[in-house]
Amino acid sequence: MIRSADASSPATRAVDIVRRGEPGVSADHVAVEAPLEVRVNGQPFSVIMRTPGADRELTLGFLFSEGLVRRRDDVTRVDVDEAAGISSVVFARGRADAVAAALGERRQVAMHSSCGLCGRRSLESLQIDGPPIPVAWSVAAAIIDGLPATLRTAQPAFAETGGLHAAGLFDTEGRLVASAEDVGRHNAVDKLVGGMFEAGRLPLSSLLLMVSGRSSFEIVQKAWLAGIPLVASVSAPSSLAVDLSVCSGMTLLGFVRDGRFNVYAHPERVARQAP
Amino acid sequence: MIRSADASSPATRAVDIVRRGEPGVSADHVAVEAPLEVRVNGQPFSVIMRTPGADRELTLGFLFSEGLVRRRDDVTRVDVDEAAGISSVVFARGRADAVAAALGERRQVAMHSSCGLCGRRSLESLQIDGPPIPVAWSVAAAIIDGLPATLRTAQPAFAETGGLHAAGLFDTEGRLVASAEDVGRHNAVDKLVGGMFEAGRLPLSSLLLMVSGRSSFEIVQKAWLAGIPLVASVSAPSSLAVDLSVCSGMTLLGFVRDGRFNVYAHPERVARQAP
Repeated sequence: MIRSADASSPATRAVDIVRRGEPGVSADHVAVEAPLEVRVNGQPFSVIMRTPGADRELTLGFLFSEGLVRRRDDVTRVDVDEAAGISSVVFARGRADAVAAALGERRQVAMHSSCGLCGRRSLESLQIDGPPIPVAWSVAAAIIDGLPATLRTAQPAFAETGGLHAAGLFDTEGRLVASAEDVGRHNAVDKLVGGMFEAGRLPLSSLLLMVSGRSSFEIVQKAWLAGIPLVASVSAPSSLAVDLSVCSGMTLLGFVRDGRFNVYAHPERVARQAP
Repeated sequence: MIRSADASSPATRAVDIVRRGEPGVSADHVAVEAPLEVRVNGQPFSVIMRTPGADRELTLGFLFSEGLVRRRDDVTRVDVDEAAGISSVVFARGRADAVAAALGERRQVAMHSSCGLCGRRSLESLQIDGPPIPVAWSVAAAIIDGLPATLRTAQPAFAETGGLHAAGLFDTEGRLVASAEDVGRHNAVDKLVGGMFEAGRLPLSSLLLMVSGRSSFEIVQKAWLAGIPLVASVSAPSSLAVDLSVCSGMTLLGFVRDGRFNVYAHPERVARQAP
């Protein structure tokens, strides 16, 4: 289990607040948002605003989503200094050209905690192409109903602050395989994908991804690159999330809560049954 | 009133969905997310994933937050082709050096719908400096209580899709001065600031900013640059949002809902009264 936040993690921080209508100062907790500078072969590559914890997984998942790494042995080492907010990645010699090209193309790029598409120069670069994801399995609606409650059990820092997004990978029986929390939804997904990448488990063709909040283009794109055939979210999808799901063959579920959900693309992965 | 979404706007789109447990296909609406390529003096500068509507305001607010424009006459013209997703900005001749420097520094940068800090190269560039915001007024807690309901009346596309963020500028009597909707919170703020920038009304030292969802570093930073002394959000702030508010002298309110709220920084702008 990847957990980006637990009792010993710096995912939350104590703050003093004033509550409306109450005298004096009260204790509370907020989600930590802090910059992580990703260095590639010693060069600054990107600053990601993230919640500390699982920085190694975040770094690898981010570089995977960016196309800079494809196989585990593309990377020789990853050194994380969580306190300083620096993650240094050394690439294998065979990736030198790809890394140099990426540095030349994308130097100066930084990202906010909820940003996932930095580095595109123009509209054309947003065009989507890639292999369709085949329909290999289906999942029972009752299993989907249970995903939000299971994900919530893996959100200790959200419970404390109300200010963190969560993402979980589940098998088709609804068992939680991995989870992560972050102030940025896309960071939580990068943490999951990065952990699986390092474990040599990509593509994740037998798993579902469930995210808190909404699903945007970036979330679906990251899932698609990792080979995840089904994305579910607690809240609404965007139009571009729907479009990418339809084009790529992915199943997209929204408003998964209270025993209900909507299917926005490829319902064939949801087993039909009586309501 | 700036409204980024109304009956005639393309902020929402009809989609066919399958509802859990129901046969056949149902009609629904999703929030539109689509790229806007911002061109500066004919050069691609950035791609913003946004909800169409108020593209002109978004462009100006974005360039203001990025420091590329400071005064209204820095910009000679803005041409928006909403359907093509292109916004072309022509700068005044006197800004040629600043624009060239920005293009050299930041070419290649693109942003997602919820990204606001693209273009930072390293941790140092995230350092915060600037003049503190003086305490010039206070607002009654009862006025703050009413902000969410007022903002909701200005969210037609959220009501339809559940998938859009909103931001509103209010005076200290709780009257809505301007509002905007977008799939990205920071875009909604850029739309507001851009509209006020064009109207020559910056700094917004007599107004409050209320945003749906959470408040992160970027939201507080944008408000600070626009001179807004108080930021309120429906949900939680991040640690960096708190830090920036404390340092800059801004008042930060969170969990503004159901007649309650927390004050995370500079409570002196909230008038004390009996609960």
